[in-house]
Amino acid sequence: MQTPAIASELIDQLAYNTDGLIPAIAQQHDTGEVLMMAWMNPESIRETVSTGQVCYWSRSRKKLWRKGESSGHVQRLIELRFDCDGDTILLQVDQTGPACHTNRRNCFYRAVRDGEIETIAEPESV
Amino acid sequence: MQTPAIASELIDQLAYNTDGLIPAIAQQHDTGEVLMMAWMNPESIRETVSTGQVCYWSRSRKKLWRKGESSGHVQRLIELRFDCDGDTILLQVDQTGPACHTNRRNCFYRAVRDGEIETIAEPESV
Repeated sequence: MQTPAIASELIDQLAYNTDGLIPAIAQQHDTGEVLMMAWMNPESIRETVSTGQVCYWSRSRKKLWRKGESSGHVQRLIELRFDCDGDTILLQVDQTGPACHTNRRNCFYRAVRDGEIETIAEPESV
Repeated sequence: MQTPAIASELIDQLAYNTDGLIPAIAQQHDTGEVLMMAWMNPESIRETVSTGQVCYWSRSRKKLWRKGESSGHVQRLIELRFDCDGDTILLQVDQTGPACHTNRRNCFYRAVRDGEIETIAEPESV
């Protein structure tokens, strides 16, 4: 958890699109697995930094999306990084359960292999 | 390298924003390091899949951006994956040299640590 001051400084340094959003990549901190990509706004960044629990902005529901609030599949923030242009966030997280709403560990389960689009991961058993 | 048919099928399955673009995360295939995030359009996806060399769409220059064309810091495509919503691409690549224009291995070299924004990686020596 970080102080409110650093959240404000961070929010000021980042660049947002015309909708006021910035893409955030979530990566499992210890394995390097890329889990998902979602969007944040200043409010969700502030909440994430100050609580240590990842909160996105849901573009479809137009509200804060506290990841795992209903499913329990939360992401604990290990470290927030951002890129050279300040327009992409990389979240190092500790993911509880599957990150994907399809119940897969990560969202990137389709791949082009041998001239076909293949499903390369199955949902986890519950 | 893949056939033209699979490139067309892939392009049809993906979702683009109002500018006709889709975000693409580049990850070093063997270490899991997230190198950068950039944007692709159907033309750059087609070129990437058919040549095996990653090509983005430059939003600032409004043209195809053949990564490493001038710097030599190319990205060889190992595998293209995409997410559950079809609106984000994950490129497994083999990066030659630094991925970042600051000459750092990856673009995510700033982090919030101990209440400060810290630079956590230095440019590679040339």
